Amino acid sequence: MSKPAASSVATATAILRRKLGAKVVHTDDAMLEAASYDSSRISVRPAAVIRPTKREQVGVVLKLANKHGVPVTPRGRGTTLMGSAVPLKGGWVLDLLALDKVVIDAEAGLAHAQAGVRVAEVQRAAAAEGWFYPPDPSSKEYSTIGGNIACNAGGMHGGKYGVTRDFVVALKGYLPTGEFVEWGTATRKFAAGFNLRDLWIGSEGMLGVVTDAVLRLIPAPAARWTLLTSFADEVSAFKAARALFAARVQPAICEFLDRYSVQCAEQAMKTTIFPGQPGRPVILIELAGSEAELAEAKQAVLAWAKKHAAGHREAKTREEAETLWAVRRKCSGAMFQMGDAKLNEDITVPLAAYEAFAVWLEQLREKSGLAIPTFGHLADGNLHVNIMYHKAAPNECRSAERAVLALMKKVVSLGGAISGEHGIGLAKTPFLRMQHSPAAIGAMQAVKRALDPKGVLNPGKMFEVFEVWKAPRVVVSFPWDHK
Amino acid sequence: MSKPAASSVATATAILRRKLGAKVVHTDDAMLEAASYDSSRISVRPAAVIRPTKREQVGVVLKLANKHGVPVTPRGRGTTLMGSAVPLKGGWVLDLLALDKVVIDAEAGLAHAQAGVRVAEVQRAAAAEGWFYPPDPSSKEYSTIGGNIACNAGGMHGGKYGVTRDFVVALKGYLPTGEFVEWGTATRKFAAGFNLRDLWIGSEGMLGVVTDAVLRLIPAPAARWTLLTSFADEVSAFKAARALFAARVQPAICEFLDRYSVQCAEQAMKTTIFPGQPGRPVILIELAGSEAELAEAKQAVLAWAKKHAAGHREAKTREEAETLWAVRRKCSGAMFQMGDAKLNEDITVPLAAYEAFAVWLEQLREKSGLAIPTFGHLADGNLHVNIMYHKAAPNECRSAERAVLALMKKVVSLGGAISGEHGIGLAKTPFLRMQHSPAAIGAMQAVKRALDPKGVLNPGKMFEVFEVWKAPRVVVSFPWDHK
Repeated sequence: MSKPAASSVATATAILRRKLGAKVVHTDDAMLEAASYDSSRISVRPAAVIRPTKREQVGVVLKLANKHGVPVTPRGRGTTLMGSAVPLKGGWVLDLLALDKVVIDAEAGLAHAQAGVRVAEVQRAAAAEGWFYPPDPSSKEYSTIGGNIACNAGGMHGGKYGVTRDFVVALKGYLPTGEFVEWGTATRKFAAGFNLRDLWIGSEGMLGVVTDAVLRLIPAPAARWTLLTSFADEVSAFKAARALFAARVQPAICEFLDRYSVQCAEQAMKTTIFPGQPGRPVILIELAGSEAELAEAKQAVLAWAKKHAAGHREAKTREEAETLWAVRRKCSGAMFQMGDAKLNEDITVPLAAYEAFAVWLEQLREKSGLAIPTFGHLADGNLHVNIMYHKAAPNECRSAERAVLALMKKVVSLGGAISGEHGIGLAKTPFLRMQHSPAAIGAMQAVKRALDPKGVLNPGKMFEVFEVWKAPRVVVSFPWDHK
Repeated sequence: MSKPAASSVATATAILRRKLGAKVVHTDDAMLEAASYDSSRISVRPAAVIRPTKREQVGVVLKLANKHGVPVTPRGRGTTLMGSAVPLKGGWVLDLLALDKVVIDAEAGLAHAQAGVRVAEVQRAAAAEGWFYPPDPSSKEYSTIGGNIACNAGGMHGGKYGVTRDFVVALKGYLPTGEFVEWGTATRKFAAGFNLRDLWIGSEGMLGVVTDAVLRLIPAPAARWTLLTSFADEVSAFKAARALFAARVQPAICEFLDRYSVQCAEQAMKTTIFPGQPGRPVILIELAGSEAELAEAKQAVLAWAKKHAAGHREAKTREEAETLWAVRRKCSGAMFQMGDAKLNEDITVPLAAYEAFAVWLEQLREKSGLAIPTFGHLADGNLHVNIMYHKAAPNECRSAERAVLALMKKVVSLGGAISGEHGIGLAKTPFLRMQHSPAAIGAMQAVKRALDPKGVLNPGKMFEVFEVWKAPRVVVSFPWDHK
């Protein structure tokens, strides 16, 4: 949809405020400004921010939006880097943060969570009952269950346990046209009717608004064990990772940092990550399970490390393990030494193409002249390729644009995906047609029109090409910035 | 869609035969007859059976079907009990059995399977490489991956490992309009565009035709351990099961047989299942994992059995375990002693409602005067409630109809589902509106119209009410009949 007339939006906003009250419908400057951007820092001012305190208010908002043609952009905390929560066509931002309850069904191993509850809160509530909710995007202390469902968030645990989708049992919410619906029941199996639950997951707030989710939990692992391994170069590290998986070892976490990421983290932390081997790529492994399981798996991992790694170091205590994980968390922020702008691409690469990709990426660094530190989740092929550049240098901007296009073409040609866990939003719209055929995109758009005939829900995302490298960004810092 | 004119179907069939040849387009009597029914035994004669030998032929079939308005009913082996594979509106049956290859990617732990390959074949190919494909409907030696995807098949392993949906990584196939599409990539994470992969899974061949699937495998468990437990009555068994899960034990299998199922199996096998406790409900437990994991879990399960079960018996060898599992497989067929017709309902019930459901089911038996043996998968609340009656006795037929309606109302009121793993097909169409609101069904139908505007793909299923208890059935026996 194109931007609606300001007058019709103003009329609709006035009606909505009469219906829901000024405590739900906000038009003050601070609220409008904060809701104008997400972590992409692309900013478009909405006409109002609606923060429902009751589920039913979501239906009222959507029905009125359809009547008056007002764009509605649903939003959690806005930690997305993709611009998925930017109200591109103005209108209303539907902020779900006030719906923030979570209740654990300790017997059934289920969490009943509202859209606005933070992921880490769900994890803590589950842990208190001996259960574990594995999806863990690095934003988990801030990002919400609703947002995680919208982009099908992943994280470090994806290889062994799966991503958000793998833990959603049932959803409640509203169709774009404002009708309340439920998908699935609070039982683990369900085969009754088309699966619109999973169609909603990952649809980036374009096919419906989730208000409530039932999430599956798994028994909390009794013990954890952490090993840091170091490698001569990236190709050796990738080759070693393949050998680990081929040995049927399933680490709970298997994080890779290339030499550039390691160097960033070492400079930021003023320490050598692997003593005696500064600036070398590392793989951080965490095993999780019962003591007995771990005892077995440890032997397999240590034997593997002896054979494949240049060095390995076991964390003797939980505190020491935490120090190692701190490296992983620091490296993302530390990259801003190499440029003041970053294109963070969360591509996936099939296991068999790992070494070829490492070789190609090194060539891309040379050709582009840019720093491209890369880290990621090896067990599911999900690599974060960070293209660093300086905004004020036009040649670097052009180079970054060319590099990201080349990267996307490469991963698709290798059989990988342009996004593993971030979604499309605005930032990846130029690449969607590399991933999908016209027929596939046609089917997606047909589904969108079927469920949202007036196109009110999160318009302008996914299918309209937005040249993200040309978009101005607001200067703002977030608590989840990793700096 | 209504039935098309015979002449236009005949014209289209002649064109199709010229395009694909007589080895793909069959019109001989034996083929038409065999494709007229599935395990529901409801029979409608198609005009032709098309058995593609190349993926591309599926697209040719669908494009021509759209042009001439010919209904197309996709089909695997036809083991479904729901009538999902019956060509209700005539036209063409699209039989995918000739696309039956499977290749294991041993390193990545993925199976590349065509739609027509049997589930047990995938399991055997995976096992040969040290991997395991957990979904295991009892039809697995016959039913195909395509069919399993169409109904999101489950089986005994669902509680711990999940169902078919949880193992599908990517799909290839054709839109109802005949365009080739791919959903997902052969990597474990994917967040690029709407998730039509999962919309296809469980859509019973109404939203697209799957030709190829990439399936996720898990490391094959090194060891298994089986325990048979016996209980005074159903309520005690259900209460005990809840205590087991509350103790965070996750058996690979946790199968329940009520006293009626046990009695059937005992008569059929001419033996007492639990020595000294004939005719009592049992729970069969299988643990799977490494030797070390099992050693720990065994202790927890044995402590639980001592506290909650009337008796327990460990299988000392794999052969002894197999004898116990034979009971589970026999009980379904043995039920035909109690009636010559069966309404096999695979409902789900939330854990917390187990005992209330057992009490209610006993009342239903008394009120209906029918035998209703019940067994199922306790870890995911998926119970098979078998309403037995005699076709020739009109009062029993009416009673069975009333009983199934009461059952469906009850499970929905308890927060359960009308189907856990069989789907809707024809047999469950009278109950879909108990499960879903008009808005939810409206959304499903809007999606159907969006992807299949001419309504050619598997018409008449899911949304049109079909009174299954009034439908005549053909007399035919299948190798998967459990008799």
